[in-house]
Amino acid sequence: MAGEAAVYRRRLARLLERFPHLGVDAILFFEMKNICYLTGFTGSDGVFLLLPDKGVLLVDGRYITQAREEAPQSYTIQYRDKIGGVASAFGEGGVKRAGFEAASLSVELHEKLRGKLAPCMLIPLTEELTGIRSLKDSQEVLLMRKAADIATEALLQVIELMRPGVEERTIALEIDYRMRALGSEGTSFPTIVASGPNAALPHARPGSRKLEDGDPVVMDFGAVHGGYHSDETCTFVLGRADAKFREVYAIVKDAHDRAIDAVRAGAACREIDRVARQVIEKKGYGPHFSHGTGHGVGLDVHEAPRLSALSDQTLEAGMVVTVEPGIYLPGQWGVRIEDMVLVREDGCEVLTKISKELKII
Amino acid sequence: MAGEAAVYRRRLARLLERFPHLGVDAILFFEMKNICYLTGFTGSDGVFLLLPDKGVLLVDGRYITQAREEAPQSYTIQYRDKIGGVASAFGEGGVKRAGFEAASLSVELHEKLRGKLAPCMLIPLTEELTGIRSLKDSQEVLLMRKAADIATEALLQVIELMRPGVEERTIALEIDYRMRALGSEGTSFPTIVASGPNAALPHARPGSRKLEDGDPVVMDFGAVHGGYHSDETCTFVLGRADAKFREVYAIVKDAHDRAIDAVRAGAACREIDRVARQVIEKKGYGPHFSHGTGHGVGLDVHEAPRLSALSDQTLEAGMVVTVEPGIYLPGQWGVRIEDMVLVREDGCEVLTKISKELKII
Repeated sequence: MAGEAAVYRRRLARLLERFPHLGVDAILFFEMKNICYLTGFTGSDGVFLLLPDKGVLLVDGRYITQAREEAPQSYTIQYRDKIGGVASAFGEGGVKRAGFEAASLSVELHEKLRGKLAPCMLIPLTEELTGIRSLKDSQEVLLMRKAADIATEALLQVIELMRPGVEERTIALEIDYRMRALGSEGTSFPTIVASGPNAALPHARPGSRKLEDGDPVVMDFGAVHGGYHSDETCTFVLGRADAKFREVYAIVKDAHDRAIDAVRAGAACREIDRVARQVIEKKGYGPHFSHGTGHGVGLDVHEAPRLSALSDQTLEAGMVVTVEPGIYLPGQWGVRIEDMVLVREDGCEVLTKISKELKII
Repeated sequence: MAGEAAVYRRRLARLLERFPHLGVDAILFFEMKNICYLTGFTGSDGVFLLLPDKGVLLVDGRYITQAREEAPQSYTIQYRDKIGGVASAFGEGGVKRAGFEAASLSVELHEKLRGKLAPCMLIPLTEELTGIRSLKDSQEVLLMRKAADIATEALLQVIELMRPGVEERTIALEIDYRMRALGSEGTSFPTIVASGPNAALPHARPGSRKLEDGDPVVMDFGAVHGGYHSDETCTFVLGRADAKFREVYAIVKDAHDRAIDAVRAGAACREIDRVARQVIEKKGYGPHFSHGTGHGVGLDVHEAPRLSALSDQTLEAGMVVTVEPGIYLPGQWGVRIEDMVLVREDGCEVLTKISKELKII
């Protein structure tokens, strides 16, 4: 995910503005997704030190060439030993109070750093760093659109294989195979294909169960393009849809549609969850909607903000979030309908493309 | 990976024996691979508290049924809030000094636990926990054999596709697809297919480069079966092998063979690395062998022990490790040859099955 230097400068500037409020004169990043976002470097190991006057990217010998190519606007240093490398960059920067990602840095690494960096203070940052990637720029949205398009095309190709007698895992494998053949860098997460009673489990793993006539089939899948993820869920039904399925599908679809209608800049994340949940509760299925309504998507498939009853975040224009209500009837089946949307000032744009009208295949 | 209750009792007993030495009266596990190893539970979230008289598995509502099924010998508790759940299990167990996985527990979670569990002391364990999974029992070896067999079969199927003009990423995709079609639960890691100059990069990502006549092609890949990984690297050459390639291949093969000959219970891990490295150094390619000689494999594809010059571990019968020397010539090409072996008292058994003789395809 190489972007223009101006993009990275803007991202760093947004963080630098917050230094006084955070009470730090540097921030140390170990999370590779954050490092990629702030520098463009896509390797699997490294450290990024953001100082008031520059960004210092520290990598080992494997990655020095790649780091210089991908992150030309960073000051790139090769280390032999990670902690030692960080310590000398700290010394040169005259750092006194450095923030760090407390939600991911391990106790062990923190202890080692503390010993080596003293008397510099290490300041744990958690909520303060949540959401640094949540506003997407036009280039990021383009990558996510493309990821969603790949996923759409793969699913459309696979529909013809969905016949009674085919195993769930075969469908999942074919979705993954076609996404990659169409250019996806992998899958956003392990693809879910859950049929019949398995569809009642929100996190079912595709297995050897064979599709049967009349089965609802929940398919939750996503592609990756330029490091950015898509996330979408379709629930199709095989051969025929009985009255009960039609009823439940219509409720979930209504919850999904109303929640999407409520998405706009300024809306509270918990309000979107409430809108979806209220539709389902009013029909008496409240206890069967056992998860939150959505989450942010980007370089991670799950990132800030969360659309749940416990969230205290507010939607802003440029966020990309999922809306994915569901009803799960243990021992019977389930329905989940999910789209990924881009928040705008006055509403939202649905980035995922597959129709969510009831589909009998 | 459900095993017999006796297997888990044995694993817990080995840890419990070390409580006095570690100075703890409990150990708290958050690493899901460790929890799976100690209980059989394969969910993606949970906590395991090992007490002198029992193991307590704490999970949220999504996983309570699965946890009771997979880990019947554990005392299973459902929590609404993870920290609160741990705190009440601590209270009931009368825990005073609890060890934890310092290499993976985040600073944030550690702080929250510390606040909630006081006055109980939390004792960081690092080296003390490295290697709790490194001795494989016969059931684990069986799963790894099967994983290696799946990978072998997939690669043999893909050889026929390896012709000039085919892209690296197509080969990688086909290996992954066939491994899963043959029953693999995924891939051990992102499959490497690196041709021509890309083969000079030990961690190359497969891209759009098309294979050419005369190309060396490094393929590093592994399957997953019952949660256990395989890991193997073949370097084939397309169409014809010139004298330089034959020379380098023979050196790497010799390093590989001699290192495997040196593997036996009681051998120092660094000695295996030295044996391989010395062969390569004597021929003048020392600076071009830029990584360690191997690593343990199991529920993780990289786990203890490490076979490197810096390792202070000793091989024991029952460990499964890779032996994977390589020579990388920047801008030209590279060769890596890797097998996965089971350490025995008097030597080792190679678990991976593909011949490592020079192969022109």
